Amino acid sequence: MTFRQRLELAASMVEERLAAVLDKAAAGGAPPRLVEAMRHAALGGGKRFRPFLVLECAGLFGVEPQTAVQTATALECVHSYSLVHDDLPAMDDDDWRRGKPTVHKAYDEWTAILAGDALLTIAFAQLASSETHTDPAVRADLVAGLAEASGAAGMAGGQCLDLEFDKLGLPAKLSRPYVERLQAMKTGALIRFACEAGAILGQADSERRRALARYGADLGLAFQMADDLLDLEGEPEAMGKAAHKDERKATLVAALGADAARERLATLEADAIAALVSFGPEADGLREAATFVVRRES
Amino acid sequence: MTFRQRLELAASMVEERLAAVLDKAAAGGAPPRLVEAMRHAALGGGKRFRPFLVLECAGLFGVEPQTAVQTATALECVHSYSLVHDDLPAMDDDDWRRGKPTVHKAYDEWTAILAGDALLTIAFAQLASSETHTDPAVRADLVAGLAEASGAAGMAGGQCLDLEFDKLGLPAKLSRPYVERLQAMKTGALIRFACEAGAILGQADSERRRALARYGADLGLAFQMADDLLDLEGEPEAMGKAAHKDERKATLVAALGADAARERLATLEADAIAALVSFGPEADGLREAATFVVRRES
Repeated sequence: MTFRQRLELAASMVEERLAAVLDKAAAGGAPPRLVEAMRHAALGGGKRFRPFLVLECAGLFGVEPQTAVQTATALECVHSYSLVHDDLPAMDDDDWRRGKPTVHKAYDEWTAILAGDALLTIAFAQLASSETHTDPAVRADLVAGLAEASGAAGMAGGQCLDLEFDKLGLPAKLSRPYVERLQAMKTGALIRFACEAGAILGQADSERRRALARYGADLGLAFQMADDLLDLEGEPEAMGKAAHKDERKATLVAALGADAARERLATLEADAIAALVSFGPEADGLREAATFVVRRES
Repeated sequence: MTFRQRLELAASMVEERLAAVLDKAAAGGAPPRLVEAMRHAALGGGKRFRPFLVLECAGLFGVEPQTAVQTATALECVHSYSLVHDDLPAMDDDDWRRGKPTVHKAYDEWTAILAGDALLTIAFAQLASSETHTDPAVRADLVAGLAEASGAAGMAGGQCLDLEFDKLGLPAKLSRPYVERLQAMKTGALIRFACEAGAILGQADSERRRALARYGADLGLAFQMADDLLDLEGEPEAMGKAAHKDERKATLVAALGADAARERLATLEADAIAALVSFGPEADGLREAATFVVRRES
């Protein structure tokens, strides 16, 4: 399979599992309006890049995609929740996402807030389920890792720093270390954890787990920087959302300038690939992922 | 110790642990603004009734308060998050909570949304930690239970039904079964789980776990109904929030009228106490809690 085919296969597996998880929530008594809003947020869009990373990394340790998809789906729920909340009028105030109206435009703000809350919550329900792994120590480890990656010192904290800059003008001047820390929290932590989750599922030794975490950390920074460059240069049609929205935001492109950002991006690609040195050709999908992230056009 | 003293002891233990958890988040790199908002939401207020239930129920199985407080604190984080989001302008639009400005008044909306998100997330981090219980199966069980109680078919779903009535006028006429289902989700699920969490921590057999869940379900309904009656009759000074706010809301008081609600409350108190029949005098604190809930004046 080519890299594109592997990415698409991961996306279709996660789409199917997400639909099943939301059907189950509806059958379990969740209000139809809430489940519809969760479906709107989570289904039918996105590259499913984080789930792909979970599946690829778990595969390095012989974990079948049919097993790893449960964890991959949990991560995608957290990613979807973060988009719903970030798009709210009080935050980034975006009307479009993945070529569709954002949840608060399609429904309303209270429904969007609750749909985000419920997607975050259901992610932890999934990880705690025995379908995730037979060993409860693995499940508890995954919960701890996901909570750390998405919490106050991770994704939510990064969004806070981003909005402090955007809304409050703090700090007055962006430095590269500051922006890299912000982006490592906001985008990097969940991408890094996607890779580490594969190692946790595979009950990898600590050295290999650290190697995948390093790969994921570099990849996450590269992912955000490529996104910022695309936002500066891209066409809104190709992206399914408004371009040029992030000019005031705390991007490395703003801190470094576009040329230096492109250089940094090449270094991150090389570093990410170098972190995979102890893995054989089974890790080629991850190597291609690094190149894909740096060179993608949408 | 009297019931009041036990309630106050639980509150002070949880307050101390909450402060430590938030200090640790700050030390771990969470942005100061976000941690301050989380502190504003979680510290210095509330009866800490859910934590008290965790401690009392765990105590029935010989689990020390020093152990159970970690789980109790996680539940209080979820409760605090729900208040922060429910108070938002897009939801209940409340300016005061526990005698202080709500988080979005003290800070702003985006900070409040993120503080709620981060409090929900940190709850799962706490449950997954080895400080919660040495057996990871217990930790995974607690995570699954908390996610179910607070998710789309639990607390978040109940808030959705409540707002559907409040904002969209649906359903046009409230029936008692509808309102009881709504309240069982919105308030009952987390109170029920507080009791069940004690049984999970104590690795209780399924019969005793079910008994505590039944007790918690009755108690949760009683708690909400007493709250609604207080809201109708209470003085805002004693409550630390605006009274008479909930007249349009989907309360049993609205569905039944105040007199029938008072009768139902007495039945719930008796049912809750009856569910404890297999427990000895060690459960007296829980029996007093049922009476306290029904007769409290603030």
